Amino acid sequence: MDSSSSSWVTEGKPIKGVLLDISGVLRDGNSAIPGSLDAFHKLVQSGIQVRLVTNESQVTRKDSLDKLTRLGFQGLQFDKIFAPAPLLAEELVRQGHRPHLLVHPRVKPEFAIIPDLDSNEAATCVVIGDACEHFTYDGMNTAFRTLLDTQKRGLEPKLFTLGRGRFYSHDQLLWLDVGPFCAALEYSLNIKAELFGKPSKIFFDTAVASMASDGISRDEIVMIGDDIIGDVKGAMDAGMRGVLVRTGKFRAAVDENHVSVKPSGIVDDLRAAVDMILS
Amino acid sequence: MDSSSSSWVTEGKPIKGVLLDISGVLRDGNSAIPGSLDAFHKLVQSGIQVRLVTNESQVTRKDSLDKLTRLGFQGLQFDKIFAPAPLLAEELVRQGHRPHLLVHPRVKPEFAIIPDLDSNEAATCVVIGDACEHFTYDGMNTAFRTLLDTQKRGLEPKLFTLGRGRFYSHDQLLWLDVGPFCAALEYSLNIKAELFGKPSKIFFDTAVASMASDGISRDEIVMIGDDIIGDVKGAMDAGMRGVLVRTGKFRAAVDENHVSVKPSGIVDDLRAAVDMILS
Repeated sequence: MDSSSSSWVTEGKPIKGVLLDISGVLRDGNSAIPGSLDAFHKLVQSGIQVRLVTNESQVTRKDSLDKLTRLGFQGLQFDKIFAPAPLLAEELVRQGHRPHLLVHPRVKPEFAIIPDLDSNEAATCVVIGDACEHFTYDGMNTAFRTLLDTQKRGLEPKLFTLGRGRFYSHDQLLWLDVGPFCAALEYSLNIKAELFGKPSKIFFDTAVASMASDGISRDEIVMIGDDIIGDVKGAMDAGMRGVLVRTGKFRAAVDENHVSVKPSGIVDDLRAAVDMILS
Repeated sequence: MDSSSSSWVTEGKPIKGVLLDISGVLRDGNSAIPGSLDAFHKLVQSGIQVRLVTNESQVTRKDSLDKLTRLGFQGLQFDKIFAPAPLLAEELVRQGHRPHLLVHPRVKPEFAIIPDLDSNEAATCVVIGDACEHFTYDGMNTAFRTLLDTQKRGLEPKLFTLGRGRFYSHDQLLWLDVGPFCAALEYSLNIKAELFGKPSKIFFDTAVASMASDGISRDEIVMIGDDIIGDVKGAMDAGMRGVLVRTGKFRAAVDENHVSVKPSGIVDDLRAAVDMILS
């Protein structure tokens, strides 16, 4: 992959904006990935616009930012972090939905803008995020019965998901992401969830819009991530370049020569990516 | 559906054998379904051969039989109960597999024929059954990592499932069955599980073989169940007749005029089915 790795920056317009995945690029669980602190700061100081685009749905953007700050990442701003939960919360308000939340308690504050969220009235949809240890048998059954109940009341059973990731790396171990549990609920009632989060274009477009306000167009943006589908394919489908790092959940056997996705580049880590962008 | 309901017995050869689903036909959780006790005994006393064909994977056949006996069902014999776990256990022994079991502890005795089942040696496959409250986040992650680990060792990640049911009725409430959790693991690694249980033909054929030893052929057999796919379609695909009862998990809106399956008949309950068979 060396030729591809060294060609991706020079092909197309110069890079003016970088979208960074968090987990697997900046940090792995509770540790900064080696070299990522220096690389991140070099990138920010270069004047290139940076946004963090994460599918993390276990925590609020505020928590996510605080955690990165504790790990030593400096100069982060709340409004430069893009996550699925706040986007979905706004959409639910627009549609007048009252969701049942199968999400991690830590992310619930992102849904506080929804009126009567904690009322006892019947829910009109289910939202699933990376609930981690809250993916219990009871929790899954409750979400399933909520969907059944909306169907009984003549509504379409409506499932929104904050991601479709299969798994992620956390503290050197791989963990099931929201995708498999979403697939379980989809199977239970033969329905298809609506995705808010990578790789959906609607989600990438929120970050692209933020870049546009700085005069940067999508063909001047590269997404850097460890998920060949969620990060790389999603960004490329949305008209940006997509670069895969060999950190986080990267698995050489599957990702290095992926059957359907040809990344704009594959590099060892964020440090290598930043070096190429700035060279 | 009345015309279909009243025509299914008279079409084709006379019925000499009946396969009965247990949950949703004989009992719903801890109660016999009204009329099912009398109907079952009438059927057995008529001389028609009866087998119980269940996808239950929470318990051993012995437990299942004991529970039915406690509810008042008489004349049951251990060798007339067909369940996926013992069939799969035999197959695993044949193939030399050492499985990691994501199943309910109560069904584990069915797998005791497998050598070194509890050894600490690396598993070569995962078996998933209806683990109920044992479908925990940790349990799902462990099964996922076991599959990953077999892949790392150069083996094909192999998942066997004891069923694909979406949900079932238990004590007047609907519960997620093994199918959704199997779908979750399939999604996690983009693999397809191998099914032992209804509606697989290999499973129905074990009951058909047992009927054959009594001189009954598959076109003389009817399967009675509350699952339009697992029971009715499965039996019909295997060359038998399939009758749906309106008890258990039957849902009129979906099942009464199913988009793809036309049962040999739809009747209110086991009592109605037996009355037609004997009339």
